[in-house]
Amino acid sequence: MTIGVYGLGRFGYFWAEVLARHASVCGYSRDAARRVPRGVRKVGEEELLSLPGIFLCVAISAMEEVVSRISRRLSAGALVMDTCSVKTYPVAVMQRLLPDGVSILGTHPMFGPDSARNGVAGLPMILCPARIPRSEVERWREFFVSLGLSVSFMSPDDHDREAAYTQGVTHYIGRVLSDFGVSRSPIGTVGFAKLLEIVEQTCNDPWQLFLDLQRYNPHTREMRSKLAKSLAAVMDAIDESLERGDPPVTRLP
Amino acid sequence: MTIGVYGLGRFGYFWAEVLARHASVCGYSRDAARRVPRGVRKVGEEELLSLPGIFLCVAISAMEEVVSRISRRLSAGALVMDTCSVKTYPVAVMQRLLPDGVSILGTHPMFGPDSARNGVAGLPMILCPARIPRSEVERWREFFVSLGLSVSFMSPDDHDREAAYTQGVTHYIGRVLSDFGVSRSPIGTVGFAKLLEIVEQTCNDPWQLFLDLQRYNPHTREMRSKLAKSLAAVMDAIDESLERGDPPVTRLP
Repeated sequence: MTIGVYGLGRFGYFWAEVLARHASVCGYSRDAARRVPRGVRKVGEEELLSLPGIFLCVAISAMEEVVSRISRRLSAGALVMDTCSVKTYPVAVMQRLLPDGVSILGTHPMFGPDSARNGVAGLPMILCPARIPRSEVERWREFFVSLGLSVSFMSPDDHDREAAYTQGVTHYIGRVLSDFGVSRSPIGTVGFAKLLEIVEQTCNDPWQLFLDLQRYNPHTREMRSKLAKSLAAVMDAIDESLERGDPPVTRLP
Repeated sequence: MTIGVYGLGRFGYFWAEVLARHASVCGYSRDAARRVPRGVRKVGEEELLSLPGIFLCVAISAMEEVVSRISRRLSAGALVMDTCSVKTYPVAVMQRLLPDGVSILGTHPMFGPDSARNGVAGLPMILCPARIPRSEVERWREFFVSLGLSVSFMSPDDHDREAAYTQGVTHYIGRVLSDFGVSRSPIGTVGFAKLLEIVEQTCNDPWQLFLDLQRYNPHTREMRSKLAKSLAAVMDAIDESLERGDPPVTRLP
């Protein structure tokens, strides 16, 4: 079976490359100049939409437009899998816009070109079966396991809550540190090196992905407000300690 | 030559253990019940203060009291080295309170029992020579290099500025994340694992060390205010994007 990858941005290019090590893969990008990774065959939109299994690798904010655009052009019995970093929103969009004869499997490969630099073995992959025969889910699960991935099943809402408090907070901290401006230092501690790695792991991704992660996940607003509260709590503890003031810095010679 | 370690808290215990692999080491704690690591001889305060080279491993906020207490009881020609995570303040305290015949070397071993779990090789050690013959500094530098440490010389103020923007911000983020409450997740990304490691690297240290790092470093106030600004900048960018609002989460089915 040939797998289709719709969208060859940073993640789509990487994902097509991973899949092509284990299966026959075709790739399509609306940008005709976009190159495909080695082992992937570049095809037009029509040919890609004729395939039985298609991964959508498009921005979360482009899902509604893309799913509308392709919904009437898919083969009967085709399976559409999104790869968005949130699940409630894209799964709802696919359920609303894809015809009954098309199967739907929400997926979240929780890695990318940076975190999978040394391979995908052991990395997490979440599946949210939405409209798909059990036997077909099992076949795909086995395929993902054969790539070395650590596969879990979750409801879209459970995924989004858990992702807000893991991936969401990580990307948030990464962007804050990038704005703050951390950089290598000859006196950097082991902990500081981890801080730099977080920036590397999060800030190479498009800014749009970051915004989408925060905007389309119904749990990130609460996460951000909790994070702001924690920042204020630590700030207050320091201020309080400064007020108590055994020799404060300002009284020094 | 026998080296003295004054103070056997979390860092002093660890540091005495590291030194004892390469030299004869005595340790003293005001807490008589405190045990010493293997290879270290436990001694009373008087005997420790008679040694020619003494590391002070006490809280930054205890420096003034401890240096006052020991200043008239040291041998002529002794060398006192503090190990504080800030340098301007403790070096100034030692210069003010130690008699002329006593040498002073500010040191900052930028690691601890967590970051040096797999040994100290390659870890940073900062030296701030304050009142000490050049030949004696060179002898200690060679000793620290023989432990595998990466030794740098800096002025106390340069150290404090650089430390605020590396170690200081790392400990700050670690404490914020600990208050926020991160914990292992089956769907944790590679970046999230680094976030958890930052908490591990920073939150095992005493809360007093964290407060002291923030209070006694003249550059951390600016660092914290810059960090709060960056947090607000990222928050604003998200809010702005939510206001522009192509399908926001709240309008979803």
